[in-house]
Amino acid sequence: MIDGLIERMLKGDKRAVARLITLVENDEEKAREVVSKIYPYTGRAYIVGITGPPGAGKSTLLDKLIRVAREEGKVVGVIAIDPTSPFTGGALLGDRIRMQRHSTDPGVFIRSMATRGSLGGLAKATSDAIKVLDAYGCDVIFVETVGVGQIEIDIVKTADTVVLITVPGLGDDIQAIKAGLMEIADIFVINKADKEGADATYFELNLMLDLEKERWEKRGWRPPIVETVATTMKGIRDLWKAINEHKAFLEKSGELEKKRRFRAEEEIKTIVSDRIARTVGKKLSEDEISTLIERVVKREIDPYSAADQVIEKALGVKV
Amino acid sequence: MIDGLIERMLKGDKRAVARLITLVENDEEKAREVVSKIYPYTGRAYIVGITGPPGAGKSTLLDKLIRVAREEGKVVGVIAIDPTSPFTGGALLGDRIRMQRHSTDPGVFIRSMATRGSLGGLAKATSDAIKVLDAYGCDVIFVETVGVGQIEIDIVKTADTVVLITVPGLGDDIQAIKAGLMEIADIFVINKADKEGADATYFELNLMLDLEKERWEKRGWRPPIVETVATTMKGIRDLWKAINEHKAFLEKSGELEKKRRFRAEEEIKTIVSDRIARTVGKKLSEDEISTLIERVVKREIDPYSAADQVIEKALGVKV
Repeated sequence: MIDGLIERMLKGDKRAVARLITLVENDEEKAREVVSKIYPYTGRAYIVGITGPPGAGKSTLLDKLIRVAREEGKVVGVIAIDPTSPFTGGALLGDRIRMQRHSTDPGVFIRSMATRGSLGGLAKATSDAIKVLDAYGCDVIFVETVGVGQIEIDIVKTADTVVLITVPGLGDDIQAIKAGLMEIADIFVINKADKEGADATYFELNLMLDLEKERWEKRGWRPPIVETVATTMKGIRDLWKAINEHKAFLEKSGELEKKRRFRAEEEIKTIVSDRIARTVGKKLSEDEISTLIERVVKREIDPYSAADQVIEKALGVKV
Repeated sequence: MIDGLIERMLKGDKRAVARLITLVENDEEKAREVVSKIYPYTGRAYIVGITGPPGAGKSTLLDKLIRVAREEGKVVGVIAIDPTSPFTGGALLGDRIRMQRHSTDPGVFIRSMATRGSLGGLAKATSDAIKVLDAYGCDVIFVETVGVGQIEIDIVKTADTVVLITVPGLGDDIQAIKAGLMEIADIFVINKADKEGADATYFELNLMLDLEKERWEKRGWRPPIVETVATTMKGIRDLWKAINEHKAFLEKSGELEKKRRFRAEEEIKTIVSDRIARTVGKKLSEDEISTLIERVVKREIDPYSAADQVIEKALGVKV
């Protein structure tokens, strides 16, 4: 079945792409088979991470970026990471509906992934989905996250170009988040730049960048600040240009190679931790686990000793 | 040294508490020793998770909650999880300064923890820090997170009572986040309730709760909605009352026991994955790792096969 799906995908069948992504998302064994088979076809797509706080207008901006990329004939993939319930796993972002207008375009593939399940699971599922889209023939793949949680940061920082979107007039916490994301951003966007406070935000961001002057000089790339009004297309072409300039910079400087190596490393790590977690689940019975938990709750043993026992029983080794 | 610190902590020395938390945060071996020694003194503190989107006024609200708890003579601990840079690890939340007024009070202990380092690391460090504060004698421990990322959700959902703070007039994304957090919240707070749109937010939240009517009936607890204006203390006492009512409900229904079991389980899991990650780092040389990465980048092997090799070399077993 997998061979057939891959064959169809390589011929441009979008439904096969969707099914392959579902497979890599839900089934560890099948993910393994899919990835090893499509791996030779991957490595050509350019990955752009789009992140920013809630309410920054990321989806609208992405919608417009897709349009610009399509005008140039690029095949576009989008993976949108949803901050959803750990219990129901339902994705509720009405925003995403805006992007769906592209769904009838054979040159655009959009997929939402929910942050349900294990953390390693999401990072792994995302990178496997990227590989499917890459093998499908996407020239550019946008990975959109809400840039607050560590896991979202971890995912977005494996991208080739990271675009950080902010908006004028956000509060204290946002400043902190912006500062936290500062170092992974290759391009800054002030969206809703027609709103009051845009100049102040620009000034402030620029000042923050000035403080790191030496770093930019050493690296050869100072993150530009692009002002946009996504709803009216203002600045979107400038942003697309900035993305392509950053790509050219990475290629020329050899940093693209480094980024890809970093991505491979992160990926191996997440597969390892994911697999260990599954092994524990398989090797220990429910009863064994609940007895251990009970003993910890009763303060008979501490959690570290319980973890020792779990590892020994699951892997047959002491670590 | 650890024995001496624990002895001083048990006598009420706050500096010893701070040093013990630093130990459990930074050193896996020492964390193990500290936890196993203080474990018999733990299990008495009540854990309250405070979460909500950036800008909801969590820190101001917490500042006022501390005051109310102190009036009742409770010993209070606060662990604030900062969304910080994965690179510098610097915490920049100016907000937190407001809470520092309590730092000279021997009955209040406030600690920031940064979301740097490994994910498992943060969850583990947080639960170990909770144990130190518990052993110190805290009656209530507030764990504050920015409720967007999965890791923050994972941390906050191990609390006994989860308080979700929102504010009037947030955008689309926020709605989704709220929906995502809906199921882990025991109490809803509309902060800045004097702002325009507070009634609409109340109406909307109430409607969302109505949709789950059966669940609340079955469970015996419908999350109340408390309106607050943290800056003026409005509603803070009502919130404190709601927290205590939820606590009484948990105790009576037997749910507190269940929550504690869940917490122990989560803890064991994070210790296991953390330890495996460390073992991989110890057993594989830099060279071995970079050769593997290189081969993945060159498409000679796929990431799953690379992960196999890592596990075999690190643990000496196939899983």
